Amino acid sequence: MARLETVLTDVDAGIWLDAWRTNAADGPQLAGASAWSVSKTRLRGGLSDGVDVVTLDNGALSMSILPTRGMGLWKGSFRGLPIEWKSPVARPVNPQFVNLQERSGLGWLAGFNELLCRCGLAFNGPPGVDRVLDNNGNAIETELTLHGKIANLPAHRVTVAVDDDGDGTLSVTGVIDEAMMFGSVLRLTSTVSTTAGSNSLTITDTVSNPSAQPMELELLYHTNIGRPFLDEGSRIVAAIAEVAPRDDHSASGADSFDVYPGPVAGYREEAFFFDLQAGDDGSTAVLLKNSTGDCGLQLRFPKQQLPSFTLWKNTQADEDGFVTGLEPGTNYPNLKTFEREQGRVISLGPGESYTTEIELSVFDSPDSVAAAEAAIREVQSGEPVRHAAPIAKFSPT
Amino acid sequence: MARLETVLTDVDAGIWLDAWRTNAADGPQLAGASAWSVSKTRLRGGLSDGVDVVTLDNGALSMSILPTRGMGLWKGSFRGLPIEWKSPVARPVNPQFVNLQERSGLGWLAGFNELLCRCGLAFNGPPGVDRVLDNNGNAIETELTLHGKIANLPAHRVTVAVDDDGDGTLSVTGVIDEAMMFGSVLRLTSTVSTTAGSNSLTITDTVSNPSAQPMELELLYHTNIGRPFLDEGSRIVAAIAEVAPRDDHSASGADSFDVYPGPVAGYREEAFFFDLQAGDDGSTAVLLKNSTGDCGLQLRFPKQQLPSFTLWKNTQADEDGFVTGLEPGTNYPNLKTFEREQGRVISLGPGESYTTEIELSVFDSPDSVAAAEAAIREVQSGEPVRHAAPIAKFSPT
Amino acid sequence: MARLETVLTDVDAGIWLDAWRTNAADGPQLAGASAWSVSKTRLRGGLSDGVDVVTLDNGALSMSILPTRGMGLWKGSFRGLPIEWKSPVARPVNPQFVNLQERSGLGWLAGFNELLCRCGLAFNGPPGVDRVLDNNGNAIETELTLHGKIANLPAHRVTVAVDDDGDGTLSVTGVIDEAMMFGSVLRLTSTVSTTAGSNSLTITDTVSNPSAQPMELELLYHTNIGRPFLDEGSRIVAAIAEVAPRDDHSASGADSFDVYPGPVAGYREEAFFFDLQAGDDGSTAVLLKNSTGDCGLQLRFPKQQLPSFTLWKNTQADEDGFVTGLEPGTNYPNLKTFEREQGRVISLGPGESYTTEIELSVFDSPDSVAAAEAAIREVQSGEPVRHAAPIAKFSPT
Repeated sequence: MARLETVLTDVDAGIWLDAWRTNAADGPQLAGASAWSVSKTRLRGGLSDGVDVVTLDNGALSMSILPTRGMGLWKGSFRGLPIEWKSPVARPVNPQFVNLQERSGLGWLAGFNELLCRCGLAFNGPPGVDRVLDNNGNAIETELTLHGKIANLPAHRVTVAVDDDGDGTLSVTGVIDEAMMFGSVLRLTSTVSTTAGSNSLTITDTVSNPSAQPMELELLYHTNIGRPFLDEGSRIVAAIAEVAPRDDHSASGADSFDVYPGPVAGYREEAFFFDLQAGDDGSTAVLLKNSTGDCGLQLRFPKQQLPSFTLWKNTQADEDGFVTGLEPGTNYPNLKTFEREQGRVISLGPGESYTTEIELSVFDSPDSVAAAEAAIREVQSGEPVRHAAPIAKFSPT
Repeated sequence: MARLETVLTDVDAGIWLDAWRTNAADGPQLAGASAWSVSKTRLRGGLSDGVDVVTLDNGALSMSILPTRGMGLWKGSFRGLPIEWKSPVARPVNPQFVNLQERSGLGWLAGFNELLCRCGLAFNGPPGVDRVLDNNGNAIETELTLHGKIANLPAHRVTVAVDDDGDGTLSVTGVIDEAMMFGSVLRLTSTVSTTAGSNSLTITDTVSNPSAQPMELELLYHTNIGRPFLDEGSRIVAAIAEVAPRDDHSASGADSFDVYPGPVAGYREEAFFFDLQAGDDGSTAVLLKNSTGDCGLQLRFPKQQLPSFTLWKNTQADEDGFVTGLEPGTNYPNLKTFEREQGRVISLGPGESYTTEIELSVFDSPDSVAAAEAAIREVQSGEPVRHAAPIAKFSPT
Repeated sequence: MARLETVLTDVDAGIWLDAWRTNAADGPQLAGASAWSVSKTRLRGGLSDGVDVVTLDNGALSMSILPTRGMGLWKGSFRGLPIEWKSPVARPVNPQFVNLQERSGLGWLAGFNELLCRCGLAFNGPPGVDRVLDNNGNAIETELTLHGKIANLPAHRVTVAVDDDGDGTLSVTGVIDEAMMFGSVLRLTSTVSTTAGSNSLTITDTVSNPSAQPMELELLYHTNIGRPFLDEGSRIVAAIAEVAPRDDHSASGADSFDVYPGPVAGYREEAFFFDLQAGDDGSTAVLLKNSTGDCGLQLRFPKQQLPSFTLWKNTQADEDGFVTGLEPGTNYPNLKTFEREQGRVISLGPGESYTTEIELSVFDSPDSVAAAEAAIREVQSGEPVRHAAPIAKFSPT
């Protein structure tokens, strides 16, 4: 058994590789694929200046990860299928250029274009007022900004590994501190790994509390998908216990929450909150399949880890970001004050940690899509409870 | 005919040259000048860390352009005459260090020192409240910051070209996205070009709307000039239809709007708004000549493209920025809400664009200054309407 | 006599050394120590990306200085004793990642982890509202952010020098502009120097006003010390004329202001304001000694330069920053409006400057600690006036 592990970045040890690449020619041979590679580059110029990109290519599925942007998944491809969406923000943005307070707390949107970015760690949801402690221990009001800080924080330690056990595995791990003296202190250790030749990858995150005091945690995976998985007639497939629109506007689309229109200029987003059903292994899956059913993208995750699922429908014109969001979370993306009232904000005790695991799979044939759908339908127990209007436990009134 | 084109930066293509230079020794021979050069460097250290500088030297006129700062013109020289001003902010500032919200929305001033910087694209003018849409399509109030974002956005693509046609031309082109999901999306493509051996350069900007929805545009060229063009007794020459002070304080200087005092410690700025007259070719020119009439700097631009001209008089002590601003714009630099009411905010439809062209010329002899002045006087038709106080169509009350 | 001087950074001259090192093998021989060195590196990755570090090692005392962070002193060591504290913010943070307005003006705390950082230059103290002038000369209200800007501003010129005169001296000098058009303009020139083989270093700062108008100055040295100097039973030794708690909460600890508890999870900080007594040479010293009296750290500074001394007691759990602050200042760290009323904001006339000199010494034996303590006790004249509650001249009510 051979294992290659390379430290790309380690601030404490003074290690930093500007550009790096390995593949079958100089790394181990993997049973699952011969044409695998792992590479790292740093982007230069524009708002991307200084953004590091690590790309895992397992020979079939390729994914670019952004250590500089909270270990977000930028974009990928699977045997020629692009796994991405086209945001009006065209390139990865170095957080050094992002002011989260811009536009009344919506500055996060100036860097928003990843396939998957995290919302958290101390808070997520819309901008709004929360009470926190200042440096003297006095309660003050402060403005929470959209979706928190983690997507705009860089990893101080990044390692990649290639392991020839079984079919062979490629992985990248990043460690990020979201920390402020007299404020929230949380550490994210995120690993993205994929088996050589496979159609899937797994994101394993551990958020730990290194403090001697309890820390609050909100964590949501904003997974954003465009063409070809999203088109007019695309559908969402999930095992649903209960579903409700987020707000009155979304309620107008409640009848067709699981099907997508084509792109519409000026489309106003709809969002739906779900309580999903889990299978015997405790996991639940959400599949987005295209209108012809010949390609699909699926997220699978333990229901217990990520009990709150949000579907974001934003079928604007292609130029403006034709996209849907599949968003497993520890909470719904409401203002933290509401989620706290609902008991959906996690409290991590000193030294405690919270782990989540999400499998992202891509299907590129009618058969594989149908099989994925069938497996989900299998889990559905009873009829989903479908609410036509927002409900109190999911949405603030 | 020979043409050299070099890509200095292209984020999408992964191209970035850290330092680069060409001249007659390794580029084409130009009829207009033998000692031309084009170079690119990246500044390191201080607030300038990471700022790219491209310098076009046509053998007589040299100009340094800042792709990192919105393709602003930092400073230049013409046969020994400095074309610049001395700001208290001594060096180019990487936008990564600028917080536009600082000091109640005046943070822009912490990076302000260029000969020419743009104010826009979504808005310019003073800080103040406007209504915009949030990510859910709801109207919210937000704080506009002084003079917008474009001067603090870097180009993601930068190319330089040298062409030996005619006298020969040197140029640099930068492309900048001012974009935010659920917000304003505009793209600036700016080219600065100059003929070898000449006393002028041309800035050609195209702002396009890549969105499927209309976008608002405000664009003003904050062109800032100090010694030797500005001294006690310097004058502004322009063909004026109408001129009014911006505010009551400026009204106190209305009698002498076109002549400058020397530097005065603690001087409080005055500003004047103009409706200029255009010549037969549709262009209008504004000349700043020094007190002895032996040097001058002129801007010429199509009246139709840039109908609103602002003169900024800020003859503070040399240490504090002895400077005047010649500011052609699509609007006057009032709060956007007022300019919108006055019909001076441009609406760009999906796919539409707006092009402006400004020629900056330098004169370094009494004859050339006098000729430039005569050409402007020629255009003047009738007496200017001079207002002693602010007027309603130009200034909010 | 030999003197080596190297320019590490000079933006104006286009000089920047990415990494550099000298020692006795290639520099001058120093009588005080043979194993001295001076080095410079740039950190890469995480929030530290782009942070320059200059380390002076005099053979006994080593100190790392951060030109990128306002010439702050990151951390050091003396013959094996660490001179530092452990902040929840684990590594030096590039100011490009810091938003001072975050968390209602407490954003400074997201970069706070140095042994010594400056608070100033235009203002320090807690966030709050002050009146300033806008670009049109009109008075506006603006939010001051915690502890000002200087700790998050990079030096545009950095030089190091090694001089073999006497025992030999190592030094680093940085120049930083805190400047904004129509705002505060101040220049800090800071030199940290140390004699080869000695147990001390000296920080000599000159803040100058390059403007033609008067400028306000507030300057405080936030000197933060953890283990081994701080432990349960550590004591502060100083010649005290008068001492008072900052606020009601601190008043509860007034009886034991000079002695420290061990770490306590959730400890709420206490702070005390002092009027110190100076010796015949005009200087005063503050010593922190550990519980067993076998190590100590002392600051010595002219009383006239830094008349206001603050003691910050923050004995939180080790994980959360077990630390105390010894803070000589030109003022107490109250909101600037209060300090202005008390006459503790300095006004620098055009061209004027203000110089401070602080000696930091480390003692690592019972004898040297005892000698330092005795020297301070010698200066004490009369009994300290100890207030049990905040007093009006020190604290706003």
